Amino acid sequence: MQGLTPLSYKLSLISIVVILLTTGIVGVAHGRKKLVSSSDGEPCHKMTVYCHDILYDGTNTANATSAVAAQPTLLSRSVSVNDTFFGEVVVFNDVVTAGRALASEPVARAEGFYFYDKKESLSAWFAFSLVFNSTAHRGTLNLMGADIIADKTRDISVVGGTGDFFMARGVATLRTDAFEGLNYFRLQMDIKLYECYV
Amino acid sequence: MQGLTPLSYKLSLISIVVILLTTGIVGVAHGRKKLVSSSDGEPCHKMTVYCHDILYDGTNTANATSAVAAQPTLLSRSVSVNDTFFGEVVVFNDVVTAGRALASEPVARAEGFYFYDKKESLSAWFAFSLVFNSTAHRGTLNLMGADIIADKTRDISVVGGTGDFFMARGVATLRTDAFEGLNYFRLQMDIKLYECYV
Amino acid sequence: MQGLTPLSYKLSLISIVVILLTTGIVGVAHGRKKLVSSSDGEPCHKMTVYCHDILYDGTNTANATSAVAAQPTLLSRSVSVNDTFFGEVVVFNDVVTAGRALASEPVARAEGFYFYDKKESLSAWFAFSLVFNSTAHRGTLNLMGADIIADKTRDISVVGGTGDFFMARGVATLRTDAFEGLNYFRLQMDIKLYECYV
Repeated sequence: MQGLTPLSYKLSLISIVVILLTTGIVGVAHGRKKLVSSSDGEPCHKMTVYCHDILYDGTNTANATSAVAAQPTLLSRSVSVNDTFFGEVVVFNDVVTAGRALASEPVARAEGFYFYDKKESLSAWFAFSLVFNSTAHRGTLNLMGADIIADKTRDISVVGGTGDFFMARGVATLRTDAFEGLNYFRLQMDIKLYECYV
Repeated sequence: MQGLTPLSYKLSLISIVVILLTTGIVGVAHGRKKLVSSSDGEPCHKMTVYCHDILYDGTNTANATSAVAAQPTLLSRSVSVNDTFFGEVVVFNDVVTAGRALASEPVARAEGFYFYDKKESLSAWFAFSLVFNSTAHRGTLNLMGADIIADKTRDISVVGGTGDFFMARGVATLRTDAFEGLNYFRLQMDIKLYECYV
Repeated sequence: MQGLTPLSYKLSLISIVVILLTTGIVGVAHGRKKLVSSSDGEPCHKMTVYCHDILYDGTNTANATSAVAAQPTLLSRSVSVNDTFFGEVVVFNDVVTAGRALASEPVARAEGFYFYDKKESLSAWFAFSLVFNSTAHRGTLNLMGADIIADKTRDISVVGGTGDFFMARGVATLRTDAFEGLNYFRLQMDIKLYECYV
């Protein structure tokens, strides 16, 4: 750095900063994808979708989208007079739609599993992928977290994504939008991504 | 850029840099949350907690916090004279405390599942949420990873968070702090977050 | 800021920027690990490995690396004349090698589980850890996502890592490299990490 005045030294550092920022971190896309994390706390992408879970009951073969892979444990009736299904594991491949109605536009499949995990009342834990395969979106979002059914809304994590959702992260807010007996529920999912690669 | 001298051109770029940095990436919080990743390799948040798993044995209904959802497979006795429980799946909703004692201050629930996955010896795999609901913390951390029981300590990933732990990432170091027969173990969890939104 | 000329004010801001960048975000490592996200869309680390799954069939005790923890549900034969194994849960601890051959250099174990989740055809969902314990790498990568077997390749998420893969994130592209009856398959995994701490 010999021979540089303090000002020109600073300016040479500044140039490095400018180069790093314009080529890298802030990164306008030029062909390849780069991280754009939320700069103002606003989501870089959001959507609201509805997941329809139709549990197999032995008769609804054509419509069922999920089935019990492991029966409830004996703890499931240990505390409550109602069955809390503690330990029941359900595998699902649910239709996900843009609107509330099961017949509304399908936008994705929700493929994964959940299990009930509370003695005293209904509470669950989910891990699944939203698999998009339409003109609007192709790719997946991967989610996991506790679905504390007693809470009106509960947040789970979007921990990764692929395709159009390459490397995404965020939060999905779940709300039970309908619960019809033991064999159908509809979850509203407000998905907000705060890290996107664009 | 016509009419700008090289110096003023650089300074105009610098202004952009300054604006981007002060509004975005380095981001002092102003009402909304922003990513503060570890700038010096130090965690942005850390805590040590203890998870108590009390497996249901058919009699301990009141105390049990976990139960076997799927029995061990036949591989579980194939190599070792001891049962290695290969394939056994356990669903849990464990008490998590600030101190070692089960009776110490509860700070969270650990809600999730683990299974044993080694023929030769005890080894497990975990995925769960730490659900905080106290004056100190509200929100969840979501974790997953291999719990290689033979290792004195083993690291799993904190892959996401919600609420007070919005979008968090980090590493949790597990250590078996107690192992009493088949029906009780206590895990020490040293949780270090390296990405926080504040 | 009284007494500072506009230029010196800008330069003082610039100094802050320079300090923040050189100590933090862009961060050359000096003893501790820092995030280096992909600045040009290229992975910061990549590898191709092969995962060998040998399902326990009641006789192959010595070789088996996986076993059925939960049997297929009745939905598994509801639509297709072929069993689609809907709801079958498999726990695995598979050998992962550098080359295609099972006998080639082992580089990791894949420890986790998968289940089949489609009525109409074979499709699965995976969550597992790659556990590295060699001179080349020590640590783990944690992955999850939908393994849509009908697609030639499918992407799942690398959601975290530990040890040499501390805090890593990325995408793994799976390809079924061999499928021999019901008891052996080999998955090619092209793993690309886009966030590394170095």
